[in-house]
Amino acid sequence: MKQVAYLGPKGTYSEIAARQAFDEAELVPHDSLETVVAAIESGEVQGGVLPIENSTEGSVHRTLDLLAQAAVTIQGELLLPIHHQLLGKGSSLDQITQVWAHPQALAQCRGWLADNLPHADQHAAPSNAAAAQFAASHAHAAAIASAEAADHYGLHVLAGNIEDDPHNVTRFVVVGKELSKPTGKDKTSLVCSLPHKAGSLYSLLGIFAQHNVNLNRLESRPLPEAVWEYLFYIDCDGHLHDPQVAAALKEAEAYAPFYKLLGSYPRTLEQRL
Amino acid sequence: MKQVAYLGPKGTYSEIAARQAFDEAELVPHDSLETVVAAIESGEVQGGVLPIENSTEGSVHRTLDLLAQAAVTIQGELLLPIHHQLLGKGSSLDQITQVWAHPQALAQCRGWLADNLPHADQHAAPSNAAAAQFAASHAHAAAIASAEAADHYGLHVLAGNIEDDPHNVTRFVVVGKELSKPTGKDKTSLVCSLPHKAGSLYSLLGIFAQHNVNLNRLESRPLPEAVWEYLFYIDCDGHLHDPQVAAALKEAEAYAPFYKLLGSYPRTLEQRL
Repeated sequence: MKQVAYLGPKGTYSEIAARQAFDEAELVPHDSLETVVAAIESGEVQGGVLPIENSTEGSVHRTLDLLAQAAVTIQGELLLPIHHQLLGKGSSLDQITQVWAHPQALAQCRGWLADNLPHADQHAAPSNAAAAQFAASHAHAAAIASAEAADHYGLHVLAGNIEDDPHNVTRFVVVGKELSKPTGKDKTSLVCSLPHKAGSLYSLLGIFAQHNVNLNRLESRPLPEAVWEYLFYIDCDGHLHDPQVAAALKEAEAYAPFYKLLGSYPRTLEQRL
Repeated sequence: MKQVAYLGPKGTYSEIAARQAFDEAELVPHDSLETVVAAIESGEVQGGVLPIENSTEGSVHRTLDLLAQAAVTIQGELLLPIHHQLLGKGSSLDQITQVWAHPQALAQCRGWLADNLPHADQHAAPSNAAAAQFAASHAHAAAIASAEAADHYGLHVLAGNIEDDPHNVTRFVVVGKELSKPTGKDKTSLVCSLPHKAGSLYSLLGIFAQHNVNLNRLESRPLPEAVWEYLFYIDCDGHLHDPQVAAALKEAEAYAPFYKLLGSYPRTLEQRL
């Protein structure tokens, strides 16, 4: 059976995404996004899922940084609605003095926590499921996690859907080693840097415009080694095997000092820039 | 004397930035970026500083979101090198079982913590200075904070400069109510959304190119109310009172469904897109 890596432990949103992305597969939890990617690179597993963007909080920086470096390919994407539950061993909020969660979940529930648990200490956990694991053995600690994590760790839902934005969605990418085949409704992702001259971003976008390739998304990230230089993450319509996309990518690769194709894969989102 | 708001408590990088930005001023610590901005909007203080971008971690999302909404203007920017110290009451790492810091500082010291304190729990604090305050009364807790915070809270430096990236710099914006006067070496910041059609980002950037206005920075942020729509934060060369800049901004305002000028102010950074 195919083995698939995700950011564990059991009960994370990543596990839910992995189960949706792979019908029949053994799901292998990992401690970090780094080891998920390393397991795919080494062939230890045949695929994995990575959270890449949240509709409230923006990009998952570690995933963007890893994709720019690792010998892996995006093969698909999926959208997961995120509903955060406040989980605890007991049955009421009164005894809660600590809230544990991944920093992004704490940020997504900022308003609710300020209104309902203003005096509780907020603690960063490596994942929401790890926070649930902790809450399972500490009566005064609550965790922000999924409803699935409540089942896994024997916790009660102290408050449901506590996210500040009810339309909170996380986009995951499905990652593997081989390029996905064209389906006729694909998108292509790449990352590149820009030459040091005025108008270089406009010139880069012009390459896509000249070949009638629509852009879906553009995100800048500071380059770790060079202060205030940026990598640009670009999604465009079409598959690498489409002639116009191939022509645009060839020109972009020649134009950009750093260039990496991240993958071509079926698109599930309709966007236009 | 002028009063200036910053994200406190005493000993934060924001306090250091506020002291550098305002020669003679009474510095007023606030609990959150929201109340810093509210104090400026209401006229309770005459200015403030907000962290906007870190060279390692990228943009400070709360600041971007606040600038898009609030009736305040960027009047200047400054760059502050960030050196994180591990601070504690004792003198050795051995007794440390908890590390407290702002989530962004935890992220910036991720590698060092994994190598040197792999078994310590990581706790999110509202600021690094708040973490230092906590560490001052808990022998087993260390805080990641500035050297200034060690002085403020009577702590020792258990390990110096623990940031993973030695070139870690945070950019702060100086914020007030009035537009800054032109200096001949200025930049202009704005935020806008894009019409829902193919090529709209390219068209927007084309407006600046046609008026020979160079772009310095472009950052996208998901719009909280509309899943997968984005706001674009743009910095360009020149002052609002320069004729080409004024012409480009007038066209951009007409083109964009949402548009807000964030300010024109002396630039301290040389960048080109």
